[in-house]
Amino acid sequence: MSIKVIAFDADDTLWINEPYFRETENEFCSLMENYVPQHTAARELLQTEIKNLALYGYGIKGFMLSMIETALTVSSNTIDISAVEKIIGYGKALLARPIEVLDGVENVLDALKDKYRLVVATKGDLLDQERKLKNSGIDHYFHHVEIMSDKQESDYRKLIRHLDIQPEEFLMIGNSLKSDILPVLNLGGYAIHIPFHTTWAHEHVDVHIENPMFQQVEIITDVLQELVRINIIG
Amino acid sequence: MSIKVIAFDADDTLWINEPYFRETENEFCSLMENYVPQHTAARELLQTEIKNLALYGYGIKGFMLSMIETALTVSSNTIDISAVEKIIGYGKALLARPIEVLDGVENVLDALKDKYRLVVATKGDLLDQERKLKNSGIDHYFHHVEIMSDKQESDYRKLIRHLDIQPEEFLMIGNSLKSDILPVLNLGGYAIHIPFHTTWAHEHVDVHIENPMFQQVEIITDVLQELVRINIIG
Repeated sequence: MSIKVIAFDADDTLWINEPYFRETENEFCSLMENYVPQHTAARELLQTEIKNLALYGYGIKGFMLSMIETALTVSSNTIDISAVEKIIGYGKALLARPIEVLDGVENVLDALKDKYRLVVATKGDLLDQERKLKNSGIDHYFHHVEIMSDKQESDYRKLIRHLDIQPEEFLMIGNSLKSDILPVLNLGGYAIHIPFHTTWAHEHVDVHIENPMFQQVEIITDVLQELVRINIIG
Repeated sequence: MSIKVIAFDADDTLWINEPYFRETENEFCSLMENYVPQHTAARELLQTEIKNLALYGYGIKGFMLSMIETALTVSSNTIDISAVEKIIGYGKALLARPIEVLDGVENVLDALKDKYRLVVATKGDLLDQERKLKNSGIDHYFHHVEIMSDKQESDYRKLIRHLDIQPEEFLMIGNSLKSDILPVLNLGGYAIHIPFHTTWAHEHVDVHIENPMFQQVEIITDVLQELVRINIIG
């Protein structure tokens, strides 16, 4: 049995994302400085985001609404209304940021495109993610784009069934152990982890993985050698 | 050639949606009454929504952000911050509303499910629409759910290709001439329009359609007779 489909996470695997959120968060925390220290604003924002996740899902619009809500909370509804205007401005700027594809991505996609079906498997807001993919200039490498509302085991099971393959014919590549790696390994698929320097606190997991179907690499171009190894042992 | 796939729009075709938005909008306009008459607030909100559509897309979160932005505009940034809190509350209540499936829908789906592949083709926020479908109790009738970022001709072309059928094997049923009917007729598919009593101003089009592949019916159960006619002439 060998790999037929390689799925790539998008944010912070194909292109830069989390650092932009962190920059916006820093602007927000500075704006809250009259009320709470910056680290307190950051903690309150994270708590608000997690509380709202089931209702808002992932994406910039939910982030904007959670920033506004946090501004009300930390100021006990005393903040000037102009702060809300600023937060909306931060969010709109984040939505409009150009896409920066990560180093080596295009080389890897080009090397793999004729041997495998390449797909994007990403969570987040449908419109945001479609726009990012379109603006990335690498959308033509992909056979299929799956924008998932979440990345749990059941979501991957649905994706693999939809792709009409077996789990052991599926390889997922991504930067989040929690969202990209663990659920896929649990289903019996292959997974390659490429850590990114910035990870959202809600995605952090502390875990040591011993699994012949798992590998961690430093940069995306290392995926190519890893695929040679998998196809020998697979 | 006969129809293989029947696609249903979701909001205001399968279940009630727009009246809930209008109720929320009315609450919002009352909240603005100290600054502008209700009809002015409604007009300003619509303008803000349309201006933000390319950036936010469809869905409740974008609607919430546009209400907040409109509150700032119509009050020239003088509104009390508690209004923002209220708007967030309106939006969260809208997100959490239970789904009311429209009369006759389940009978129609049940009558069609063994003869056709039934799909949902809806635009809006991925998480919102998935949750609504799951809570509707009618999700098991559908073979495939396509959540589209927009419903233009190119989006339907992609859907029809993805379904691996010809346009003339595709029937779309929905309440919006602009989003559900005209693009499908342009591609050579069948379309049945079921007007709903409430339509968002941005979806209004004034058009008279003369096309043998088009029909307008009063209620969804009329679709069954219409299908008999199509399969005779088709």
